[in-house]
Amino acid sequence: MSTPTPTPDPAGPTPYPRSDLPGQVRIVEVGPRDGLQAEPTTVATADKVAFVARLADAGLDPIEVTSFVRPDRVPQLADAAEVMAEVDLSRGARPVLVPNPRGYHRARDAGATRVSVFVSATESFARANLGTDRDTALAMAGSVVELAAADAVPVRGYVSMCFGDPWEGAVAPSVVAEVALTLLEQGCASVSLGDTIGVGTAGQVRAVVDASRAAGVGADRIALHFHDTYGQAVANVLAGLECGITEFDGAAGGLGGCPFAGSATGNLATEDLVWLLEGLGIPTGVDLAALAATSGWMSGLLGRPAPSAVTRALTR
Amino acid sequence: MSTPTPTPDPAGPTPYPRSDLPGQVRIVEVGPRDGLQAEPTTVATADKVAFVARLADAGLDPIEVTSFVRPDRVPQLADAAEVMAEVDLSRGARPVLVPNPRGYHRARDAGATRVSVFVSATESFARANLGTDRDTALAMAGSVVELAAADAVPVRGYVSMCFGDPWEGAVAPSVVAEVALTLLEQGCASVSLGDTIGVGTAGQVRAVVDASRAAGVGADRIALHFHDTYGQAVANVLAGLECGITEFDGAAGGLGGCPFAGSATGNLATEDLVWLLEGLGIPTGVDLAALAATSGWMSGLLGRPAPSAVTRALTR
Repeated sequence: MSTPTPTPDPAGPTPYPRSDLPGQVRIVEVGPRDGLQAEPTTVATADKVAFVARLADAGLDPIEVTSFVRPDRVPQLADAAEVMAEVDLSRGARPVLVPNPRGYHRARDAGATRVSVFVSATESFARANLGTDRDTALAMAGSVVELAAADAVPVRGYVSMCFGDPWEGAVAPSVVAEVALTLLEQGCASVSLGDTIGVGTAGQVRAVVDASRAAGVGADRIALHFHDTYGQAVANVLAGLECGITEFDGAAGGLGGCPFAGSATGNLATEDLVWLLEGLGIPTGVDLAALAATSGWMSGLLGRPAPSAVTRALTR
Repeated sequence: MSTPTPTPDPAGPTPYPRSDLPGQVRIVEVGPRDGLQAEPTTVATADKVAFVARLADAGLDPIEVTSFVRPDRVPQLADAAEVMAEVDLSRGARPVLVPNPRGYHRARDAGATRVSVFVSATESFARANLGTDRDTALAMAGSVVELAAADAVPVRGYVSMCFGDPWEGAVAPSVVAEVALTLLEQGCASVSLGDTIGVGTAGQVRAVVDASRAAGVGADRIALHFHDTYGQAVANVLAGLECGITEFDGAAGGLGGCPFAGSATGNLATEDLVWLLEGLGIPTGVDLAALAATSGWMSGLLGRPAPSAVTRALTR
């Protein structure tokens, strides 16, 4: 009996749709911003521009391009204005992160037509990362939203440490809900609830979404943002889908981390997220091979392997 | 305002129980067998014995100890009888894998009181890995079960390639169900449905379990065995829990792989599985720190980092 020769590894999963899950999902690619902001290696401006173009070629949209924080605080993204000048802003939604009104004006001057603001669910992280207390950070976000509203610029609000905090430990879902609601009341179009250190689990996702809904935050205004520190990010997306959430953040290759948690590994890899969604019959429009090749290329520039399981499998 | 100092990384997840999931789950630790059988480095007998003891110390039971396959086919486990002679068999369930009646007799002579058999859901893998056709492999398993029944030795049946096959691509859930039912009808106490190459996704888990149930295989007779090639293993466990499955295989550290699929990475890491379960409020009795230390130690012997996200985080 002859031994058959194996075929190449599959290009994607076989779809098994589930009628209890959303039929459409939006992926927000945050690799160029959240993926690169905490890497020890600073990527050249031209490579960042190429990164955004390759992510767009792979089918991703929106793509968060950069951050207009103080260059001395995040030197990896000090070239935000230069990147924006080179990126083709006509290809799709290209939001940028802004910390305050000054950052907002710099972003607008650079051509941004969508921005994101960030706050913390916890006092400790607000003090350590934002250098202020939680409510002052929220008020700062509110002042950006006010400026943006006058320009008809949509704002996304990020909430950090929604699933656990390196200083405070567990974070109550009701606290997350309260912060999310405040951002929406201030005028944010949506809120992205972040598991900044990657400790969250599937039951907690449901608890956080349930608490947010109970507080009056619609599931259609919530995005979920996971890190994969303890290997739970893909399962947490599944739990989010089961709660009716239809927007998820991913970073190509699983790049990134959190400078405030020693063990925090990267963001949920966009390609691992795509594998889940396509396997559930939820179309993403993403070319997995092109995305994996892009992540592999960027990892080479950063001098380390991409954490993404899919990219490791497809680029082996 | 002073900047707080972060506390150490958490020792485990905060539990958020879900009333729709099973309250009790059984983890079958397969690291010493499935984890070590495909590693390029052969571990010394004394270290294998210590591995089993440390896994037991961490709270795992059952532990699949070794395999009585032909030593020339799996040289990594050629010392099966020596390992069994040194392992403390009185501490808990210590099944071993056997391929045929000859292997069964060797296992019994070595003191085994529980065995596992293995078959393939696909013809191609049966031919490539088992050197025979699928039905002959099933008949071989049946002849082991018959011998075991006479000795009152319980038998677990493994089915490989239940979620995809490197030669055939997609595998129909109805085919998996048919093979699982045959094993149970032959007298297996339970069947472990394996995603040998790690391509399965959450919707597929439901399809395979549904098909098995429709064929007459009770959820209480099904275990699920995942590999993490595309980062889906933890999400697949969540999908399995939602179908009422209460037994899952894991390998400490995420060791192992499949020699027949170039891209296949390791088994689902037991510690990543424990993080999911404990996060869902399902008690495992596993000491995560002890397990991570054990996985880290074994990875050192194998000369490569443990794939497990939890172990990477806890042993950093």
